[in-house]
Amino acid sequence: MPKTNPGRFFEDYTLGEVIAHAVPRTLLGGERALYHALYPARHALYSSDEFARASGLPASPLDDLIAFHTVFGKTVPDISLNAVANLGYAEGRFHAPVFPGDTLRSESQVIGLKQNSNGKSGVVWVRTRGLNQRGELVLDYVRWVMVRKGDLDAPAPEPVIPSLAQVVDPSDLIVPQGLTFADYNFALAGEAHRWGDYALGEVIDHVDGVTIEEAEHMQATRLWQNTAKVHFDATFRPDGRRLIYGGHVISMARALSFNGLANAQMIAAINGGAHANPCYAGDTVKAWTEVLDKAETAAPGVGALRLRLVAMKAGEAGLSRGEDGKYLPGVLLDLDYWAYIPT
Amino acid sequence: MPKTNPGRFFEDYTLGEVIAHAVPRTLLGGERALYHALYPARHALYSSDEFARASGLPASPLDDLIAFHTVFGKTVPDISLNAVANLGYAEGRFHAPVFPGDTLRSESQVIGLKQNSNGKSGVVWVRTRGLNQRGELVLDYVRWVMVRKGDLDAPAPEPVIPSLAQVVDPSDLIVPQGLTFADYNFALAGEAHRWGDYALGEVIDHVDGVTIEEAEHMQATRLWQNTAKVHFDATFRPDGRRLIYGGHVISMARALSFNGLANAQMIAAINGGAHANPCYAGDTVKAWTEVLDKAETAAPGVGALRLRLVAMKAGEAGLSRGEDGKYLPGVLLDLDYWAYIPT
Amino acid sequence: MPKTNPGRFFEDYTLGEVIAHAVPRTLLGGERALYHALYPARHALYSSDEFARASGLPASPLDDLIAFHTVFGKTVPDISLNAVANLGYAEGRFHAPVFPGDTLRSESQVIGLKQNSNGKSGVVWVRTRGLNQRGELVLDYVRWVMVRKGDLDAPAPEPVIPSLAQVVDPSDLIVPQGLTFADYNFALAGEAHRWGDYALGEVIDHVDGVTIEEAEHMQATRLWQNTAKVHFDATFRPDGRRLIYGGHVISMARALSFNGLANAQMIAAINGGAHANPCYAGDTVKAWTEVLDKAETAAPGVGALRLRLVAMKAGEAGLSRGEDGKYLPGVLLDLDYWAYIPT
Repeated sequence: MPKTNPGRFFEDYTLGEVIAHAVPRTLLGGERALYHALYPARHALYSSDEFARASGLPASPLDDLIAFHTVFGKTVPDISLNAVANLGYAEGRFHAPVFPGDTLRSESQVIGLKQNSNGKSGVVWVRTRGLNQRGELVLDYVRWVMVRKGDLDAPAPEPVIPSLAQVVDPSDLIVPQGLTFADYNFALAGEAHRWGDYALGEVIDHVDGVTIEEAEHMQATRLWQNTAKVHFDATFRPDGRRLIYGGHVISMARALSFNGLANAQMIAAINGGAHANPCYAGDTVKAWTEVLDKAETAAPGVGALRLRLVAMKAGEAGLSRGEDGKYLPGVLLDLDYWAYIPT
Repeated sequence: MPKTNPGRFFEDYTLGEVIAHAVPRTLLGGERALYHALYPARHALYSSDEFARASGLPASPLDDLIAFHTVFGKTVPDISLNAVANLGYAEGRFHAPVFPGDTLRSESQVIGLKQNSNGKSGVVWVRTRGLNQRGELVLDYVRWVMVRKGDLDAPAPEPVIPSLAQVVDPSDLIVPQGLTFADYNFALAGEAHRWGDYALGEVIDHVDGVTIEEAEHMQATRLWQNTAKVHFDATFRPDGRRLIYGGHVISMARALSFNGLANAQMIAAINGGAHANPCYAGDTVKAWTEVLDKAETAAPGVGALRLRLVAMKAGEAGLSRGEDGKYLPGVLLDLDYWAYIPT
Repeated sequence: MPKTNPGRFFEDYTLGEVIAHAVPRTLLGGERALYHALYPARHALYSSDEFARASGLPASPLDDLIAFHTVFGKTVPDISLNAVANLGYAEGRFHAPVFPGDTLRSESQVIGLKQNSNGKSGVVWVRTRGLNQRGELVLDYVRWVMVRKGDLDAPAPEPVIPSLAQVVDPSDLIVPQGLTFADYNFALAGEAHRWGDYALGEVIDHVDGVTIEEAEHMQATRLWQNTAKVHFDATFRPDGRRLIYGGHVISMARALSFNGLANAQMIAAINGGAHANPCYAGDTVKAWTEVLDKAETAAPGVGALRLRLVAMKAGEAGLSRGEDGKYLPGVLLDLDYWAYIPT
C-alpha cells in the first residue's frame, strides 16, 4: 500500500462520521500582509488595529476569508481530492473573529450521501467546523461535492439529502462580542454610504479589474495549505492549464467590492455560492453586487445586508444568466452572503 | 449617483483644504518580510534588530520606503485617480521611524492649483503628511499631479504655485531620536566605505539587475493599498500592458544601490524625483548613483549624503539625458535624496 | 577601485581564515507566512504552535530550511559570487531551532583549497556556521565550490582537501532540547506511518507536482538575501533564462515529500547533496524519496530516518542515473538527509 494519500472515494464516507482534518495552523501577521499583497483588500476593520478598537474589538482580526480558506484548505485531502465537482455551499456562519496568533483546525461531519444514477460517483454533504486553540467555533458551513467511486461494485448507501436553509436567517447571525459601529468613522473607512443608503435590488458595479497571474493564485492557494494538484501542476490536465482555486476568485471579488461597499466591513454568513465557470491565469476579474435583503442586529449601530456578489471575466454588471437560465460564460462566481455595515 | 468612487477632478480641489485619506493601516512584521521578498533589500539597519539597537534604535524599523508607499497609497483615491501625470516630488522628509505594530494614516493639504491653458486639466499641488497611531508625523512630502477636469465649464481657480525648495536643507534633516553610528560595525553592514570615502560627483554603478514580473509589481502595489487601475487591469489600456507603479521602481533601485552604498542606511529626505519613462513587466532594472552633496549632522558618527539615484532599463551608468536635454528612453527614474551614513 | 563588491577570487582565500558574512537578519512571522505561500509546506510542527508545544518545544519554529537558506544566503557575496559551480554539501547539522524574533548571522571558515590543473580556477571548502542573537550555533555545514581565479599568475596554494564524513553519524545528531514525540497526534499530523513503518530501500513517490514561476523563485531567493545575479537578471546569461536557486528546489521537494513523509517533521542533518541539472521557470517539479537508514535517538518517541530526496522535472520515481552512471537529464536534486520521526 502506498504511503501517499490517495484521497477518499465515495464509498469511503459514512453518514454521521466526523473527520478530524490534519495540520492545524497558527496564523500570524504574515498571513495578513500576504492577503493584502494578493488581493486589493481595504476594509478598514481588517487594516487598522485602531479602527478595530474603535469598533469594540481588541485588535484588527484577520480577514474573514483568511479564516474561511484556512479551514477549507484543511478539508481538501479528506473531502475533495477525488472530487469531480464542487457543487455548493450553505449555512455558513462566522462565529468569532480570528486574530494573529490563533491556531485553527477543522473537522467535518458527513451529513448527506447520495449515489448518482450512473453508479460511478455520488454526492457527499459535509458540515465543516473551524475551531481555534481554545476549542471555540470560529466558523462553520455546509459544502457538497461530487466524488468518484473507487470501487464501482461498492454498494450504494441509503440516500440521505440534508435539508438546508436557502438563507441564513438574520436572527441566526452571530455578531462578534463587543462589536459596535456607534462611533463609526466613515471618512477613515473610505465611503459615506450606510445601511440605509442601500436599496433592495440595487446593483453596484465595482468598476475595478484585476488580471490574474499564476504566481499569485498559487501563492494564495498554498498559503491555505490547499493541495489539490489541479491548481499547481501544469502537466496535470490535458490542456496544460492550471485551474484557479475558487476561493481565490471569492477573495478577489470581495476585495474589489470595497469600491461601493467599503462599509460592508465583516462577512457574517455565507448563504450559498456557485463557481459558475473556471478561472485561469490571464483572466481579468471584475465584480458587481446586488442587494438582496436587509436586517437589523442587536449590536449598536450594526446592520446587516444580504448581498449577491458576482465575479466575472467578461460581461456586464447585473447580467449573470442567459435566456436559457444558465450562467453566462463570463461569469465566474455567484456568492450570496450577509455582511455587517453601520446603520 | 453611483456608490463607487469616481475620484476627484481638477475643479473639486480648493486651495487650503485638508483631505483626510481613508483606510488607516497597521503594519506588522509581514510587511517587512514581503518587502524583502519583493526587493533585494539588504541594509543592515532594516534587516536586524541587533544592528538597529547597536545604532541606538529600539528595534529594526520598517524600511523607510514601506512608510512612504503606505502613506502615498492612501492618497491615490483622492489625489491621483483621475491624474494624467505624476509631475514631481519635493520637500520630502522622514520625521520618525515606523516600527512593526504602528498604524499609519495620511492627510493632504492642497497648497497649489493652476489650470492648464487648454482648459481641460490643471495641476494640483498637495503636501501629504503621514501620521502614526499617536498622531506623530512620520513623514511629509509635496507632490504635484496633472488632473483632468470633469466639468470643462467649471471656472478656473486663481492660480497659486507654491514656492518649493529645490533641496531639503541639511540643517532641516530630522535625525531619528537616539541614532548613533559611533559603534558602527562595517563588517556586518557589508561594506567598508564611509561618509569620507564618497566624493562629490562620484558615480557608482550598482551593477546588479532585476527583471520585473507582473505578479511582483502587483503584489507590491496592492500591499500599499494603491488602487490605480492602470497597475492591475490588463484590459484597461489599449496596448494591454499594465503600467508599473513608480514606487516599485524606486524601491527596486534603492535596494539595488546597496551594492556600493551599503552604509547609506536610512533615507533622510526626498528632494525631488521624476518618473522619466514607463516601466513594464519584462524590463530589467539596473541603477546608478551620483553623489551630489555631503553634510554633517549633530548625531554621533552620522553624516548625510545627497544622492541622485537613477534607475534604467537600458543605457549606461552616468548617462541620463541626451543632447537635447531630454531623458534617454531607457531611463526610468531620477530620484534626489538625502541618506544617513556613518562618518 | 569600485565601491561595489567584485566578489572573491580563488587566490583571495587563505586556509584557516574566518569570514564574517554581512547583514544579520531578524526573522519574524512574515517569513513563515511567505514560506507557506511559496512552498506546499504542511509539516504540523512548523504549522501549529499547539502541535509544537505538544512536542516539547516552546512554539512552532521557523522551517529548518528557512534557517538554512538565511545562513546560506549571507555567504553568497563572499563565497560564491564568482563561483563556477556549487560542488557539494557535507556534515550539515541543525543545532537548535530558530523561532520568530531570532536574528541570524553567518560566518565561514576556509577548511580546504585546491587549485585546478588548468590554473584558471580552484576548489574552496568552507565550514559555515549560523549563529543566533545569543551567539548560539543554530546550524553548520560544509560546502565546496569551484571559484575562478582573478589573477591567473597568483601562485597556487598548498592543496588541502578536508576529510569529510560521508554521512553524519546518528550519534552526532543534536535533538532539540525538550523534543518529545511521546504524545504525538498522528491524525493532526496527517499520516499514520511511523518510524517502524519505513523499510530500508523503500522508495516513496510523492506524487504531487508544482510548476515553477519566475515571480516565485525570485521572491524566495530574495527573501534569503541571496544576491547572485544569475537568479534575477534575464539579460545576464546569453540564453536569457534565469537560473533557479538550488535551494528553491530543495524547499519545493522537501515540502512535496509531506505526501508520504508527513511525520518526518524535522530535518536533523544534511549528509550531502547535488544539484544535478539546472531548473528553470516552467519546469514542473516532482519528488521521490528512498529510505537509506534508520536510527534511534535518546529523546522520547523520536527516531531518525536517513532519507534520499530526489527532485526531478521529468522521469520516474526511483530512477536517478542512466547506465553511464550519470544523472538523468530530468533529475534536479539529490539530497541525503536525516529527519526526526515518531517511533
